[in-house]
Amino acid sequence: MIGHGFMGAAHSQGWRVAPRFFDLPLQPSMHLVVGRNPDTTAASAEKWGWNETATDWREAVERDDIDIVDIVTPGDTHAEIAIAALRAGKHVMCEKPLANTVEEAEEMAAAAEEASKKGVRSMVGFTYRRVPAAVFARALVEQGRLGEIRQVRAEYLQDWLTDAEAPLTWRLQKDRAGSGSLGDIGAHAIDMVEYVTGAQLTSVSGVLETLVKERPLLGEGVGLSGTASTERGDVTVDDVALFHGRFDNGALGSFEATRFRTGRKNAFRFEISGSLGAISFDMERMNEIEFYDATAPDLELGFRRILVTEHDHPYISAWWPTGHMLGYEHGFSHQVVDFMTAIDEGTQPRPSFTEGLHVQRVLDAIERSSHDNSAWTTTGK
Amino acid sequence: MIGHGFMGAAHSQGWRVAPRFFDLPLQPSMHLVVGRNPDTTAASAEKWGWNETATDWREAVERDDIDIVDIVTPGDTHAEIAIAALRAGKHVMCEKPLANTVEEAEEMAAAAEEASKKGVRSMVGFTYRRVPAAVFARALVEQGRLGEIRQVRAEYLQDWLTDAEAPLTWRLQKDRAGSGSLGDIGAHAIDMVEYVTGAQLTSVSGVLETLVKERPLLGEGVGLSGTASTERGDVTVDDVALFHGRFDNGALGSFEATRFRTGRKNAFRFEISGSLGAISFDMERMNEIEFYDATAPDLELGFRRILVTEHDHPYISAWWPTGHMLGYEHGFSHQVVDFMTAIDEGTQPRPSFTEGLHVQRVLDAIERSSHDNSAWTTTGK
Amino acid sequence: MIGHGFMGAAHSQGWRVAPRFFDLPLQPSMHLVVGRNPDTTAASAEKWGWNETATDWREAVERDDIDIVDIVTPGDTHAEIAIAALRAGKHVMCEKPLANTVEEAEEMAAAAEEASKKGVRSMVGFTYRRVPAAVFARALVEQGRLGEIRQVRAEYLQDWLTDAEAPLTWRLQKDRAGSGSLGDIGAHAIDMVEYVTGAQLTSVSGVLETLVKERPLLGEGVGLSGTASTERGDVTVDDVALFHGRFDNGALGSFEATRFRTGRKNAFRFEISGSLGAISFDMERMNEIEFYDATAPDLELGFRRILVTEHDHPYISAWWPTGHMLGYEHGFSHQVVDFMTAIDEGTQPRPSFTEGLHVQRVLDAIERSSHDNSAWTTTGK
Amino acid sequence: MIGHGFMGAAHSQGWRVAPRFFDLPLQPSMHLVVGRNPDTTAASAEKWGWNETATDWREAVERDDIDIVDIVTPGDTHAEIAIAALRAGKHVMCEKPLANTVEEAEEMAAAAEEASKKGVRSMVGFTYRRVPAAVFARALVEQGRLGEIRQVRAEYLQDWLTDAEAPLTWRLQKDRAGSGSLGDIGAHAIDMVEYVTGAQLTSVSGVLETLVKERPLLGEGVGLSGTASTERGDVTVDDVALFHGRFDNGALGSFEATRFRTGRKNAFRFEISGSLGAISFDMERMNEIEFYDATAPDLELGFRRILVTEHDHPYISAWWPTGHMLGYEHGFSHQVVDFMTAIDEGTQPRPSFTEGLHVQRVLDAIERSSHDNSAWTTTGK
Repeated sequence: MIGHGFMGAAHSQGWRVAPRFFDLPLQPSMHLVVGRNPDTTAASAEKWGWNETATDWREAVERDDIDIVDIVTPGDTHAEIAIAALRAGKHVMCEKPLANTVEEAEEMAAAAEEASKKGVRSMVGFTYRRVPAAVFARALVEQGRLGEIRQVRAEYLQDWLTDAEAPLTWRLQKDRAGSGSLGDIGAHAIDMVEYVTGAQLTSVSGVLETLVKERPLLGEGVGLSGTASTERGDVTVDDVALFHGRFDNGALGSFEATRFRTGRKNAFRFEISGSLGAISFDMERMNEIEFYDATAPDLELGFRRILVTEHDHPYISAWWPTGHMLGYEHGFSHQVVDFMTAIDEGTQPRPSFTEGLHVQRVLDAIERSSHDNSAWTTTGK
Repeated sequence: MIGHGFMGAAHSQGWRVAPRFFDLPLQPSMHLVVGRNPDTTAASAEKWGWNETATDWREAVERDDIDIVDIVTPGDTHAEIAIAALRAGKHVMCEKPLANTVEEAEEMAAAAEEASKKGVRSMVGFTYRRVPAAVFARALVEQGRLGEIRQVRAEYLQDWLTDAEAPLTWRLQKDRAGSGSLGDIGAHAIDMVEYVTGAQLTSVSGVLETLVKERPLLGEGVGLSGTASTERGDVTVDDVALFHGRFDNGALGSFEATRFRTGRKNAFRFEISGSLGAISFDMERMNEIEFYDATAPDLELGFRRILVTEHDHPYISAWWPTGHMLGYEHGFSHQVVDFMTAIDEGTQPRPSFTEGLHVQRVLDAIERSSHDNSAWTTTGK
Repeated sequence: MIGHGFMGAAHSQGWRVAPRFFDLPLQPSMHLVVGRNPDTTAASAEKWGWNETATDWREAVERDDIDIVDIVTPGDTHAEIAIAALRAGKHVMCEKPLANTVEEAEEMAAAAEEASKKGVRSMVGFTYRRVPAAVFARALVEQGRLGEIRQVRAEYLQDWLTDAEAPLTWRLQKDRAGSGSLGDIGAHAIDMVEYVTGAQLTSVSGVLETLVKERPLLGEGVGLSGTASTERGDVTVDDVALFHGRFDNGALGSFEATRFRTGRKNAFRFEISGSLGAISFDMERMNEIEFYDATAPDLELGFRRILVTEHDHPYISAWWPTGHMLGYEHGFSHQVVDFMTAIDEGTQPRPSFTEGLHVQRVLDAIERSSHDNSAWTTTGK
Repeated sequence: MIGHGFMGAAHSQGWRVAPRFFDLPLQPSMHLVVGRNPDTTAASAEKWGWNETATDWREAVERDDIDIVDIVTPGDTHAEIAIAALRAGKHVMCEKPLANTVEEAEEMAAAAEEASKKGVRSMVGFTYRRVPAAVFARALVEQGRLGEIRQVRAEYLQDWLTDAEAPLTWRLQKDRAGSGSLGDIGAHAIDMVEYVTGAQLTSVSGVLETLVKERPLLGEGVGLSGTASTERGDVTVDDVALFHGRFDNGALGSFEATRFRTGRKNAFRFEISGSLGAISFDMERMNEIEFYDATAPDLELGFRRILVTEHDHPYISAWWPTGHMLGYEHGFSHQVVDFMTAIDEGTQPRPSFTEGLHVQRVLDAIERSSHDNSAWTTTGK
């Protein structure tokens, strides 16, 4: 595993727990964690249970006893590591967004395709696809329960920048993070909606905005937290991304990714509206989904709150009895299950780097539209 | 109309509005309002649009140009007025609870039965039966959508006595109100659940409790409000009524009527659980009902939030388009519709005085059980 | 009252009920209802309690015994009637949107201003401003409880066109309705958000789309219902309006007005996010509002569901005890109260025709932006 | 660990994960799992990561390299194992309910007290106390935010016996399970409410009922699932337990534990109502709690939905950023944290066996009351 911040903790938990609850075809062992700072890396290795540490990711790529490279570093380093690992024949799991630029993502997708011919697998970490409710939503759409999909709404609402004195972490710096709310959480909204509907965005019209343009520099610390210093720096990424999109199936979409919706902590919500039904979901209530069946008798029309904890729901039978809740990190176990299964079966795990590239192109089209007075911009799909 | 407090306002609104939205077979006119105090009665008459006033209810009973007597006085006066009116051939609508004692209620039911033979109609004002969601719930049960009903929960939660200095109005005096939360709101819970399930309580085990035993006497004012004086008096009714009950269909019920559930203003809720489904309702969201269909596919099980505003829902087509809300007083219009229709058609309006008597017997059995260490007590049904 | 469709019923109920629950400074009487078809107009007059009927609105304008003209006709007729009425010295209440074009709205606003100098009052019927929760939301913003407002979301979601065979009523014809979801419900979203925040939209970027382009012609009927004929016609208005906006206070807004959000009946929702707090509202639960106070202790942060039924909440003391629900039509009574009060006090009732004109300009800017590839377009404010 | 069913899985996950996220003063290692059937025990050992297996629990008690015995067997075996382990100087964690009878529980509590003098710790596994929302609720009460507590409602609603053909597992047999809904889930309700309020039940009046008296015998399988055979047997435990209780602080409580509330899967809910505020919780939304502060200004009264995911909330800082959900099994990690901390610090972990005994006495009093026509029965507190 390359990197060991917030995502490193989540991935580690996935690698540790998945084999206990699921019958994996291949058993992962947690060999090596890589980080620039030897001390914090060693601490992470001990905390999260990795056998060894290194400070250069090339070690992971070069070692023969390593089959899988899991990349959880900031987006600017993804391309170099992933391409090297794929060329070295390592299966690669890469955190989202795939890269910080379309060019990098294209190279990565090409490398992944090349590697795939030799049986080397790769996958992007859009973990929210693995929430059972999301898989179930996808199934409802596939079964035609929503009919023709006409409108889509997705919003990913946070409020951790509402405080104008929140420090300038790497996530607020364009050179490290690529973009702000757009790439961090907007990317989830795009991937999720395309996954659930099976449709792809062909053009977008959007606006990115930085509401608080200057913040205190980060004193020390990693991840989302960290103390503030007395100096200030420019916020070079967007605080809010609003965009509309057209899908290849004719549907119209409306999206919002923001760190300024006061009181919303991790409110990743989507609603898919079709001619026969609708689905509504909120990650703050991730064990539930609402389904509206427009073919029900008039008197019984309504959104049904389905607890996605029945044994036949995706992934659920491995866990607890009906009505017992899953949490945030369960998706990381499910990701391990699906990745190991694909490696074992020799199939392409989803989302592929090509899918990750597509999301990157949508992100890029939104940025271009924003710079072009919100003119409609094709995603190049 | 005899009386002109809070209920007088609600009934007046029913009489005025019903003929505008519904095609009534008979047109009501608002002749006479009766109250002890000529000044406040005159003010009410003007405010609520009654043509004339009187200070003695006997006038209403004796006048030839009056066909209907609507009784909205405190419970201790119901029997005398209703019986006189029925004997004088007036149709009688009487607010709930029917009376303060079983004896009075028996006399009233007997008088109603006698009058009925001469085509004189009578009805108890359990208005909540007229909320469209309640009528719809009854229909679901009648259609067998819940299967065999096994468990019932009903609670009517208020908090207006949480303040230990709230004044001692007539509703807290046993000689005027008969009982406290039990008769005022517990009666609604009993009537509603029996109406929706079609079953009747045969025995009960309960406890009544007065949590704040002394309060400031009322200085002046009517109804729920009024200023407090400096003297104090004993609260002679219950603040909380908790009881369990067995129904004639084998179901088990659990009930709570209370004025001490902090933060709950008018949370009249019930949930009916059967072998094939369940219904859940909350009067604070009176335009919605939740329906669980246990025969749905396992993966789609869930409570469906039905907005009871489709045109085919009961009473709705007379009002607004789908999705537009009804409020508290609409039930009083619906009550007028049903009462006038029954008079016109010569049928027994529901709930009859006999049904009101049954509720009175249940209330009485609960009081007796409470005095008897919560021993199970038959309702005499 | 000119017109007698769905809005005519709602306004009639306002005129009838308001004087009963509120102490109005002036007593309205319901003189004359005007409609083109003498038979249906006579039926409406009887049903809704108007003394006389006419087929030409000029009669209302010319009669000396009429002081107030209430216009509830489709938008294409508003300008002519309102201007004539104002010039004749009648106070005018005019349904929203003020007109079908900016030009008409400008003339109306000019006429209103002229009339105002002679003490003649005019007002636009954005009734949702009169929902107690909305007035309360406005008060929270005015008191600074939300701090600096940075983001706004408003959506008005309906689904009555989800059925591709729903008939082509006047609301789907550009020459009658002016626009589709944009003017019908998007106008509400704009007015509400500007009212609550006290800010005005200065520029917009949006897209209008007609998802179902052809529908069966209307056989017969008025209002939202009506049977379908076998011929088909073009839908000439938008089914969906999506737009982003910038406010004069620097806030960013995201809007959606649609008749295609399956399962949403009248889900008029808004959320206002500021540096110190947020407000969230849904008209399908119109007696509630959610308020997030970001200044609360960290451990107690959360959206508070406030039942807007306490006696000190706006308009409430005239109605029922705490916890008893108001419905859709109560806003029309409140509108009467505010209009009559303004006439009596000689003040400008809100929203004025000038405010209505501003909404019209925003609507127009959205249409222009939509035709201009969603380019940002100033509202001319 | 003695036993390896559903609870064994949950406890194993606690032992494995807790050391990764929390800085434990002592590091647990997962030595030995004990089960009667060597094959299934070996399978469990491998699945859940235990080093060794045994078929006789005495081995665990006798081995020197074992310091902690974790008992997750059915209730009829708790006493013998726990007492032996405590006497052998092992710290004991014992699943709830503590025992099947008051007598056994008394012996266990005595043994625990004896062992405690030698520094040997013991604790009952009421894991729901470790849900962050529950700890937070306790803190609100301790800080006096609810004022004087007057009413309590707790309900634990399931529906897995709604199907009359659900098989007769050990949980439906009195000799194995001790009682039905009462001991299985009612015990949680009692413990939780006493924990949160700090008050104890002194007397109860209740009724236990078996709604479906005969079920198919279990063919094979463990835990909650298992296939049905064609033979039938008597259900010897209660399906529903309804009871009222009086607390030592004067509050009145109402309780329901049932496996027949159709549509409710694991709806463990409680609401605590005091003179200054109220708390409302539902385990199906375990990351949220609702808090009503009655001291707020009248206009702002309402239940606040607090997401219990801020870093200062109990246990949360070890997990994920704000707004990321915890699931069912996190409580088992928290239990390990608290148990290990108490062992290290030499303090009494809570709930103690004495507290477990108290719950047992309440359960027993409810059973006796049920047999005594629901007469009020003291808990012997």
